[in-house]
Amino acid sequence: MSGKESTGKLWGGRFEAATNRLVEQYTASVGADRRLALQDIRGSMAHARMLGKQGVLRAEDVDAILDGLRRVEAEVAAGTFVWKDELEDVHMNIEARLTELIGEAGKRLHTGRSRNDQVALDFRLHVDEALEQWQGALHELIAVLVRRAEEHVRTLLPGCTHLQPAQPVSLAQHLLAYAWMCRRDFDRVADARQRVRVSPLGAAALAGTTYPIDPEMVAREVGFSKIFTNSMDAVADRDFVMESVFCACVIMAHLSRLCEELILWANPAFGFVRLPDAFATGSSIMPQKKNPDVAELMRGKTGRVYGDLTALLTLVKGLPLTYNRDMQEDKEPFFDADTTVSSSLRLMAAMMAEMEFVPERMLALLRKGFLNATELADYLAGKGLAFRDAHHVVGRAVAFAEERRLGLEDLSLEALRSFSPLIEEDVFTVLDYHQAVARRSAPGGTGEGPVRGQVADLRTWLEAVRPSM
Amino acid sequence: MSGKESTGKLWGGRFEAATNRLVEQYTASVGADRRLALQDIRGSMAHARMLGKQGVLRAEDVDAILDGLRRVEAEVAAGTFVWKDELEDVHMNIEARLTELIGEAGKRLHTGRSRNDQVALDFRLHVDEALEQWQGALHELIAVLVRRAEEHVRTLLPGCTHLQPAQPVSLAQHLLAYAWMCRRDFDRVADARQRVRVSPLGAAALAGTTYPIDPEMVAREVGFSKIFTNSMDAVADRDFVMESVFCACVIMAHLSRLCEELILWANPAFGFVRLPDAFATGSSIMPQKKNPDVAELMRGKTGRVYGDLTALLTLVKGLPLTYNRDMQEDKEPFFDADTTVSSSLRLMAAMMAEMEFVPERMLALLRKGFLNATELADYLAGKGLAFRDAHHVVGRAVAFAEERRLGLEDLSLEALRSFSPLIEEDVFTVLDYHQAVARRSAPGGTGEGPVRGQVADLRTWLEAVRPSM
Amino acid sequence: MSGKESTGKLWGGRFEAATNRLVEQYTASVGADRRLALQDIRGSMAHARMLGKQGVLRAEDVDAILDGLRRVEAEVAAGTFVWKDELEDVHMNIEARLTELIGEAGKRLHTGRSRNDQVALDFRLHVDEALEQWQGALHELIAVLVRRAEEHVRTLLPGCTHLQPAQPVSLAQHLLAYAWMCRRDFDRVADARQRVRVSPLGAAALAGTTYPIDPEMVAREVGFSKIFTNSMDAVADRDFVMESVFCACVIMAHLSRLCEELILWANPAFGFVRLPDAFATGSSIMPQKKNPDVAELMRGKTGRVYGDLTALLTLVKGLPLTYNRDMQEDKEPFFDADTTVSSSLRLMAAMMAEMEFVPERMLALLRKGFLNATELADYLAGKGLAFRDAHHVVGRAVAFAEERRLGLEDLSLEALRSFSPLIEEDVFTVLDYHQAVARRSAPGGTGEGPVRGQVADLRTWLEAVRPSM
Amino acid sequence: MSGKESTGKLWGGRFEAATNRLVEQYTASVGADRRLALQDIRGSMAHARMLGKQGVLRAEDVDAILDGLRRVEAEVAAGTFVWKDELEDVHMNIEARLTELIGEAGKRLHTGRSRNDQVALDFRLHVDEALEQWQGALHELIAVLVRRAEEHVRTLLPGCTHLQPAQPVSLAQHLLAYAWMCRRDFDRVADARQRVRVSPLGAAALAGTTYPIDPEMVAREVGFSKIFTNSMDAVADRDFVMESVFCACVIMAHLSRLCEELILWANPAFGFVRLPDAFATGSSIMPQKKNPDVAELMRGKTGRVYGDLTALLTLVKGLPLTYNRDMQEDKEPFFDADTTVSSSLRLMAAMMAEMEFVPERMLALLRKGFLNATELADYLAGKGLAFRDAHHVVGRAVAFAEERRLGLEDLSLEALRSFSPLIEEDVFTVLDYHQAVARRSAPGGTGEGPVRGQVADLRTWLEAVRPSM
Repeated sequence: MSGKESTGKLWGGRFEAATNRLVEQYTASVGADRRLALQDIRGSMAHARMLGKQGVLRAEDVDAILDGLRRVEAEVAAGTFVWKDELEDVHMNIEARLTELIGEAGKRLHTGRSRNDQVALDFRLHVDEALEQWQGALHELIAVLVRRAEEHVRTLLPGCTHLQPAQPVSLAQHLLAYAWMCRRDFDRVADARQRVRVSPLGAAALAGTTYPIDPEMVAREVGFSKIFTNSMDAVADRDFVMESVFCACVIMAHLSRLCEELILWANPAFGFVRLPDAFATGSSIMPQKKNPDVAELMRGKTGRVYGDLTALLTLVKGLPLTYNRDMQEDKEPFFDADTTVSSSLRLMAAMMAEMEFVPERMLALLRKGFLNATELADYLAGKGLAFRDAHHVVGRAVAFAEERRLGLEDLSLEALRSFSPLIEEDVFTVLDYHQAVARRSAPGGTGEGPVRGQVADLRTWLEAVRPSM
Repeated sequence: MSGKESTGKLWGGRFEAATNRLVEQYTASVGADRRLALQDIRGSMAHARMLGKQGVLRAEDVDAILDGLRRVEAEVAAGTFVWKDELEDVHMNIEARLTELIGEAGKRLHTGRSRNDQVALDFRLHVDEALEQWQGALHELIAVLVRRAEEHVRTLLPGCTHLQPAQPVSLAQHLLAYAWMCRRDFDRVADARQRVRVSPLGAAALAGTTYPIDPEMVAREVGFSKIFTNSMDAVADRDFVMESVFCACVIMAHLSRLCEELILWANPAFGFVRLPDAFATGSSIMPQKKNPDVAELMRGKTGRVYGDLTALLTLVKGLPLTYNRDMQEDKEPFFDADTTVSSSLRLMAAMMAEMEFVPERMLALLRKGFLNATELADYLAGKGLAFRDAHHVVGRAVAFAEERRLGLEDLSLEALRSFSPLIEEDVFTVLDYHQAVARRSAPGGTGEGPVRGQVADLRTWLEAVRPSM
Repeated sequence: MSGKESTGKLWGGRFEAATNRLVEQYTASVGADRRLALQDIRGSMAHARMLGKQGVLRAEDVDAILDGLRRVEAEVAAGTFVWKDELEDVHMNIEARLTELIGEAGKRLHTGRSRNDQVALDFRLHVDEALEQWQGALHELIAVLVRRAEEHVRTLLPGCTHLQPAQPVSLAQHLLAYAWMCRRDFDRVADARQRVRVSPLGAAALAGTTYPIDPEMVAREVGFSKIFTNSMDAVADRDFVMESVFCACVIMAHLSRLCEELILWANPAFGFVRLPDAFATGSSIMPQKKNPDVAELMRGKTGRVYGDLTALLTLVKGLPLTYNRDMQEDKEPFFDADTTVSSSLRLMAAMMAEMEFVPERMLALLRKGFLNATELADYLAGKGLAFRDAHHVVGRAVAFAEERRLGLEDLSLEALRSFSPLIEEDVFTVLDYHQAVARRSAPGGTGEGPVRGQVADLRTWLEAVRPSM
Repeated sequence: MSGKESTGKLWGGRFEAATNRLVEQYTASVGADRRLALQDIRGSMAHARMLGKQGVLRAEDVDAILDGLRRVEAEVAAGTFVWKDELEDVHMNIEARLTELIGEAGKRLHTGRSRNDQVALDFRLHVDEALEQWQGALHELIAVLVRRAEEHVRTLLPGCTHLQPAQPVSLAQHLLAYAWMCRRDFDRVADARQRVRVSPLGAAALAGTTYPIDPEMVAREVGFSKIFTNSMDAVADRDFVMESVFCACVIMAHLSRLCEELILWANPAFGFVRLPDAFATGSSIMPQKKNPDVAELMRGKTGRVYGDLTALLTLVKGLPLTYNRDMQEDKEPFFDADTTVSSSLRLMAAMMAEMEFVPERMLALLRKGFLNATELADYLAGKGLAFRDAHHVVGRAVAFAEERRLGLEDLSLEALRSFSPLIEEDVFTVLDYHQAVARRSAPGGTGEGPVRGQVADLRTWLEAVRPSM
C-alpha cells in the first residue's frame, strides 16, 4: 500500500510503481501552465460559488474555499508560491496548497468538474485576456499611424508595384494602408473572441456531471457570454487556440511587410527614413553602420509565430475524441505567439511614433522613376485615344527620355508631340507630381480628400472603441 | 518597331526583345486563373455599367461591351473559348476576345481600372462563392449528423479520453460533438466572408483613378456590401485568402479527427462500424480486407490544406506594398483547398448517412473498460467521502476486479464493501451503464435530456439558415 | 560625449540617444544564446591561439586571454557568471567579463573576427554536439528495439495495412521496422553533420579580414574538418540549422508513428501491450484509467518540431546577403527541437525496454481478421489459378465464413471446395498462421530467417559505431 | 454475382455494392500517378525477368509480358494510351491493358508483389530521376554564376549586413556565395538519393512473399544499389519523399534570397542591374515600368514548395504501420515541388546568364555608405589602438563627415587627425575601396586571390561531375 501511496499522485490508487523521473519531467506541464494560475483561481472561485448556490457544497465550505483561494492568489501574485513539478500541473499545485491551508474542504472543490474542463476554462480565460491586449496594442499602433499620416498628407512618395516606382502617392496613403490592415486584425480578433469566450466548465471529464450544476452561473461569474453545448466537444475543442494564433500570424505578416519597407527605406540608396537612435543598433566592426535591428528581428519573428500555428495544426490532426494528452502541447505555442505579437505591436507603435521621414529623398526617386507616365497615358486617353494605344505611345516616350537621362517633364513640347499630335501645352500641368496625386480624388484614392476622409474615419473609430480598451 | 510589336504584349512599348519562351510559361497564370473567367466577366459588366452611368463611357459603348461580354461568357460556358498562354492571364484573354468581337469599344473597358484591382475583385468574387459552397456542405453534414444522432440517442458508446475507455456516453453525444464543430466552422466562414465581400474595384494600379468612378455602384452590382477604403491596401491585401484557407484547415482538422475514429472503429478489434461497401475498397492481395480508404485519404488530405496555408503565409511574409508578382501564387493554394474541402465535406456527409453502427460491439468494450468506475467514485463522494479519497478506493477495487477478469458490476456486495463500508445494496443501480448516462442530465451532458435538446437546437438552426443556402 | 558613452554599447560611437529599454529586451539574445557560452569560449581559445601563432597577438596576450577564458569558463560551469541583458549577447557578455579579468588584452581577442562569424562558429559547434547526442540516443533506441525484437521473433502479430488486419507477421519484424527507420535517421544526421562541421571563423563581418589568419588551424583546434570557402556565404548561411531541424522532424515523425501504435495497442479493444506503470498516468476522475500519456505527449510534440522547421524556413525566405538580424531567431527553434528530440528518444528507449507485450491478444485478433486469406489465395495461385482469380475465390469464401462468425481454418474441406475444386486436404497446413509467417523467408520478409538476419546485421552495426559514441 | 462483378475492381469479390461515384473520383489517383507510367513499366519488366530467372514464371510468359509491356510503353509515349479513372491507379490501368493485349499471362505479372511495394518502387524511380535533373540544373546554374563571377572579379559592390552597406566586396564574391549554396544543394541531393535508390520490390503487401524471389536482381535491373531490409518498413516508408522535398525547400530558399536581391537591385534607387527584356514584363497601366516578374514569382513560389513539405510532414505524422491510403497523397506535393524547382533553377540560370550589371551604380552607393570605415578602424588598430577604441574613434569621424555630406576619403588629413593623432598621410591609401578589397586576401575573403581560387575550384568540380550529368 505504501508503495502505491508514495507516488503522491491523485490517481495513484491503481498503480504499483512510482512514475519514472524522466517521465515526470517530460510530462510535467507546470513549467508552462503556471502562467494560468490566476485564471485557475478565478475559475475555481466561480465554480465554488456555483456549487454553493446549487446546494452541492455547504456555505461554510464555500467560504473556506474562497478564503483559501484568495490566500493562494496572494502567494502567486507575491511570487512566494512554491511550485512542484511532481504535482504535474497548475491545477494540482493550487489544489494541494489550498488543502494544506484549509483542510478537507479544499478537496471538495473538485466536485463536479475534471481537469479536462478546468484546464479548458483556464486557458480560454487566459487567451481571451491576451486577445484583449492585442486589440489594445493594435489600437495604439493605429493611433500612431493615423497621427503620422496626418502629418504627411502632402508628402509625396513613389508608390511601388513590383517594387518598381509606379505612381506618386501621398505618404499618408501608404501609412494608412497599414492602419487599415490593423483594423482588419482588430476585427478578426474580435470575431475570434466570440469563439473563445465560451465556458466549458461542467463538461467534467467528457460526459458531463451528475451534480445539479449551473454552468450559466459559472460563465457569468468569469465574464463569459456563452456555455458549452456538448460535453465531449467542450473538452476536445482547441479551435479557439488555432484561430487566435492564426490571427497572430496575420498580424505578424502585416508587421513583416512594414518592417521590410523600413529596412529598405533605411538603406542609403533610398534614404526615405532615418531610424531613431533608440531603435537602431550599430556594428562591432563597421563604425558607419546604423542597423534597423528591430525591424529585422520583427520580420524574423514572423517565422516563429507561423511555426506556432504549424505546431497547433499538426497537433490536432487526427486526434480522436475527447481529451488526449497531446493537447497539453497547445499552451506553449500560444504563449510564444502572445509574447511575440504583444511586444512586436507595442514596439512598432513606439518606433513609428519617432520615425523620421525624409521627403526630399522620396521626391528624388519620384523624378528618377517616371512616375508621371500614367498621367500622360490618361491624358492621351482623355483626348480620345484608346488607353491601350496611349500606353504604347507613352512607353516609347519613356524609352526616349530614359536614354537621355531626362524626366518626361523635362522634354520639350515638340519632342513630346513627336510621339502623338494629341499632346498640347496643357500637358505640363498633367506631368506635375502633386497634380497627379490631387487628381486621384475618387473614394479610396490617394488624393487629399479621400486621405483626410480616412484619417477622420479612423479617428472616429479610435474614439468609439477606446472605452472598451 | 516591328520587333517590339511582335511581342503582342499590352505593355510592349518600351521593350526591345521578345519575352523568353520559358519565361512565358513560368509566368503565365492563365492555366490557373481561367477558373476566374465568369467572375471576371461579371466584374467587367459591373464596371462597364458604372462607367456608363458616370458618363465616362458612352451608352452605345456600354451596350456593345455588355453584349460582347455576354457572348464571351457563352463561349466560356460552352467550353469553346480559346485560351492563349501568350496573353498571360484571364483578363487579357477575355479583353482580347472582346475586342475581336466588338472592336475599339472593347479597349475602352479598361478605363479607370488596372489588372491589380481587377484580379482582386475577380478573386474575391470567386472566394466568396466557394465559401458559400462550404457553408452549404457544412449544413448538409450537420443535417446528416443530427439525423444519425437522433437514431442513436440511447446507443451506448465507451467514451474515451487518452483513447482509453473513460465513461459511457450516448453515441448521439459523440456524433453531435462533430455537428457542433461544423457549426463553429460555419460561423467562422461567415465571419471570414465579411472580409471577403469588399469590392476593390477603383483602386486601379495602386493609387486610385482620376476618373469620376462610383465604387459603391460596382459593389452593389456584384453583390458585395462594402468597398475598399484605401487604394494601396486594396491591391496589396491577400488577408481574405489566408483567412479562408485557415477556415479550410480547421474544417479538415475536424474531418481528420472523425476519419481517425472511423478508421479505428472499422478495425475488427473495435468493430463499432461496418463501412458501407460503396465507401470502402479492397486489397489486390488480401481477399479478406475491407479498407476505410475514403477516411484514410481524407485524413491524408488534411496535410495538403495545411500546406496550402503554409504557402500563403510564406508568400505574404515581408512583401512590400503594393502589388507584387509573388501574389499570383495566391490562387492555386486556394483552388486546391477549395476542391479538397468541398469534396471532403460532401463525401463525409454521404458516408455518415450510410454508416452502419454496431451497438453490441460498443457495449462489449464498455464492459471490458470498467466504464462505471467513475460512478462508484461519485457514489462514495455522495456518501460524504472526499472525491479524492473515493477515487483511491475505486482504484483499488478496479485493480482487484481486473485481476479476476471481472467487471465492477460482477463483484459481490461483500467484495465491494471490503474497499469501503459506505457501499450498500443500492450500488448496483449506480453501476448500471444506462443509469450512468441518464444521470448526466445537466446542461451539455450526455443524458437523454441535454442530447435531445441539442438535436432540437440544431434542427432549428438548420431550418433558419436553409433559405440562404 | 558622455551621452553617447552612456549607452555602454560597443558600437555606440555614432549614436546620440540611448537604446530604448523595450528595444533592449526585444533584441537581447542573451536569454537564449547563453546556451552557447562554452562553445563561444572554445572558439575564442582557438582564435587566440591562431592569432598568436600567426604573430597577430603577442604570446603574453594569448596566455592572458587563454587564462582569462578558462576562468570565465569555470564561472559559467559553476553558474556564478553574471549575465547582463544590456550587453546584448553571449559574445559581449563573455568578452566584457574577460576584459574585466585581464584588462586590455581582452579587447584584442576580437581582432580579425566579427560577431557574425563568431556566432556562426559557436552555433555550429553547439549544433554538432547536439547532433552527436541525437545519434547516441538513436543508437540506444535501436539497441532496445533489437533486443525486444529478438525476444519476439516467434510472437505473431496481425500486421496491418489501412489499419485493417492484413497478414500475420512476427512482432519482431514490426519492431525492427522502427529500428531501420532509426538507422536511416542516424545516417541522415551523419550526412547533415558533414555540412555542420565547417568552420566559418575568419569570414569576419562579411568580407574576410586583412589579418594574416589561418582558418585551417582554427578548424583543427575546434575539431572541425573543413573551413568556409566564401566569406559572404559563411556569415549568411543557416542551411545547417534547417537541415538539422529537418532531421529532427523525421525522427519525430517516426516516433509519432510508434506512439500512435502504442496508444492503439494500450486500448483494451486491442490489449496488445500493458504499459509499464512508470510510463503511464491515471485520471483525476476515472479510477480505472491507465493513460498512455508519454506516447500521447510525444505524438503531440511532433507538432512543435514541425513548427520549429516552419519558423526557420520562413525566416530564411527572401533574406538578402549577408547577415541580417532576423537570423538571431535561428537559435530558439533549434534549441527547442534539440530538447524535444533528445528527451523523446531517451524516453522511448526507456519505455520500449520495459513495455509488456501480450501475445495472446495479438493472436485473438489474428483469428478474427482472416489473416490467412492471402495464404489461401497464394495456395490457389500455386495450383495454377491466375492470382486475380484466386483473389476472387477467396473473397467469396471470407464473406461466407464471416457470416457464420468462423475463421477460414474452421470451415470444412467440403465447404472450402465449394469455392474451388482446386482446394485439397493440404489446405489446412496453409491456413496455419505460423506456417504463413515461416513461408515468407525471402530477403526482407517476416520469416524467421530474414528476421534473425536483420537482428544480426543491426547488432554488428551497433557494435561498429559504438566506439564513436 | 453480376452485381459484384460489375464493379470491375480487382478486389471486388467480397463487396456487394458498387463503389459510389464520388468515392471513385475522390480516391482515384490515376490523374496524378500516371506520371509514373514509364517507371511502372520499367519496374514490371525487371520483376518479370526476375520471376522468369527464378522459375516462377515460364519463359514464354516472360517474353509475352515483356513484349506486351513494350507495346504499352509505346502507347504511353505516343499519348494514345487510354486512362480510366475507374481502374483507380496507374498500376491497374497498365495491367488491364497488358492483359487485353496478351491475355492470361498478363495477370501472372502480379505474382509475388503487391501494389504496395510496386508503387513504392515506381515512385522511388521517379523521384530519383527528378533529383538527377535537379542536380543537372544546379550544375548549370553554378556554371553560369562562376562565369559571371569571373567577369566581375574586379567589380566593386557595397556588401551589406542588415541591408546596410557594410564593406566593399567583389561582385564575384557575392555571385560565388550563391554558387556555393548551390554546391551544398547538389551534395544534399546526392545524400538524399542514397536513401531514394533502394528497391522495395519483394516486400509485397507488408510481410514479404512466399515466392522464391531475388530482390537484388530487380534492384540491379532498375539501376538501384540497395534493397529493402524489412518488408514492413519498405511499404510504410516515405522518408525519401520528405527528404527530397526538403532539399527542394532549401534550393527555393536560396533562390528566393537571390530573387530578393535582384528585385532590390532592379529598383532605380539601387540600379545595380538592368533586367534583360526577355525576363521582365511591363504594366498595363504604367508605361515606364519594367517589372522583375520572374524574380518575384520565383520568390513567391518558395511558399508553395514549403507548403509541399508541410503537406508531407503532416501526412506522415501518427500513421500506424504499414501502408495507409493517406500515403497516396505523397505524390502531388512531390510533383509540384519537382516542377517548381526544375523550372526555377533553369530559369534562374538563363536569367543570370543575361543579367546586365551596372558597376557605376554600385560604386555610387559604395561612396555614399562610408564603406571604408572599417578600413580606418583596422588602420588605427594596426597602430596599436584596441579595436574597440578604434571603432569609437571612427564612429565619430563618420558622424562628422555625414553631417557635411562628405565621404571619409574627402576629409582633410587635419580633420581626420582631430579624431586621432595616430592618423597619418598613408591613411588615404587605406581609404581606397579597391585596396580595401585587395587587402582581404586570407582564405575565403573577398580579395582577388581567394576569389580567383574559388572560381578555379568550382571549375574543377564542374568538370569532374559533368560526365555523370
